[in-house]
Amino acid sequence: MRIHFTKMQGLGNDFVVIDAINQSVRLDARQIRFIADRHFGVGCDQLLLVESPVSENADFKYRIFNADGSEVAQCGNGARCFARFVLDQSLTSKRSIVVDTDAGQLVLNANEDGDITVNMGVPRFEPKQIPLLMPEEALVYTVFLNGDQVTFSALSMGNPHAIICVEDIETAPVSALGKVLESHPLFPERVNVGFMKIMDRQSVKLRVYERGAAETLACGSGACAAAVAGIERGALERVVSVQLPGGSLKIAWQGRGHSVYMTGPAVSVYEGQIEL
Amino acid sequence: MRIHFTKMQGLGNDFVVIDAINQSVRLDARQIRFIADRHFGVGCDQLLLVESPVSENADFKYRIFNADGSEVAQCGNGARCFARFVLDQSLTSKRSIVVDTDAGQLVLNANEDGDITVNMGVPRFEPKQIPLLMPEEALVYTVFLNGDQVTFSALSMGNPHAIICVEDIETAPVSALGKVLESHPLFPERVNVGFMKIMDRQSVKLRVYERGAAETLACGSGACAAAVAGIERGALERVVSVQLPGGSLKIAWQGRGHSVYMTGPAVSVYEGQIEL
Repeated sequence: MRIHFTKMQGLGNDFVVIDAINQSVRLDARQIRFIADRHFGVGCDQLLLVESPVSENADFKYRIFNADGSEVAQCGNGARCFARFVLDQSLTSKRSIVVDTDAGQLVLNANEDGDITVNMGVPRFEPKQIPLLMPEEALVYTVFLNGDQVTFSALSMGNPHAIICVEDIETAPVSALGKVLESHPLFPERVNVGFMKIMDRQSVKLRVYERGAAETLACGSGACAAAVAGIERGALERVVSVQLPGGSLKIAWQGRGHSVYMTGPAVSVYEGQIEL
Repeated sequence: MRIHFTKMQGLGNDFVVIDAINQSVRLDARQIRFIADRHFGVGCDQLLLVESPVSENADFKYRIFNADGSEVAQCGNGARCFARFVLDQSLTSKRSIVVDTDAGQLVLNANEDGDITVNMGVPRFEPKQIPLLMPEEALVYTVFLNGDQVTFSALSMGNPHAIICVEDIETAPVSALGKVLESHPLFPERVNVGFMKIMDRQSVKLRVYERGAAETLACGSGACAAAVAGIERGALERVVSVQLPGGSLKIAWQGRGHSVYMTGPAVSVYEGQIEL
């Protein structure tokens, strides 16, 4: 089976994107692990399969596979790359694209400048929904780790996030503290840990320790969670520029009950053909 | 500039290989770093440029660039991939290929089974030529590191190697001891450190801490150095199977004054086109 693919990246989060509409593509977990392998295969963080829609009102379906072959429901950087892909490959000419995903429908908007805006859903703050083992919701929570007091915001963007404000982003203990909090008993499904430095009321710097992984170049839902936490605390305006190690995202949120909108770049790096 | 490339690997040591004979290709260090970047570019350990020969009796010239953009003279795994590439792309039909490199001429032989044999040159044992700051040549050298006695063989395969025999390859202190010995004052140009477990007289297991890098999946010259050290010590026959984390190499050496021959696989993974 010869497969044509496009290698893409959004803030350095990189994807092998495959058109499974115009190509007959069936991949098992072993083949996905091979494609994702950076030394023996193509190499990517995730593999995106573009399929025909399931719902009547949708334009496409897309599926996301991790490098270990497991399927996941959502990925903000992947959603932007998916939208860029269907536009670049002329699979659609719409600027607003409706996509079926395993986490429900997504609406993606292509901007004039090439950036893509993704509706990342409504943040949830109730401890049960994060999930966070605290008796009641609070603006910030405090926990003692190795005798040190750690204060964080917590919310769900579909996945759990804890946000810690720091004074110095370069020296923030992302690996050490991220690892400890990520698997702390307070978070029964573990947690993504963001370290945020507020620069001014419209911009922050952010580093994220991703659940089950480590520090990454860019975490889309983490950027949303950080901006939302800052807005909730009254420290940020409703449109925030979030600077991650891999690049910048613009996050917009009108407040409780509203969706968070994430805008950022998606880049096609090269075209490839592989025999599987 | 649109460039066609082939992604290849030899024991997991991976290469972007570019035909610079039929394509007009000029790459600066910035472009090489971009291509080598695993998240923002294509991703590879090294980039190989296939050029027209300089000498009359050569078939090709090839150049090797590290991921940081610097040019290096030799790479055993790269040489095998280069030979596989010119055969697969029908740039030659010869089974014995003469190549100009910055380290002199190489002769590469394609075997019936697809494996490639590389003449890796004559090993040198004189301390000055390694270079190793010892008054005279010895079969093994001893040094005290943090109070522990460490015994190693040392030789040059064009680059310096120290080989330590271990009982257990899984638990060998590759990172810790490799790092210390790699930059020990005894080795003014630093050293590649191999940890070898002798399985029987014809096979060894090997893990290598590469100079200026870290532990790698496979080091071709390290495999040669390990086999040569074992043969010199009288522990191995003249043809040795060296099992590295990325796969196996066959090393043949007839003794002092003779070249070392390395035989192993080279695999084309996929074809790509990138706009630079």
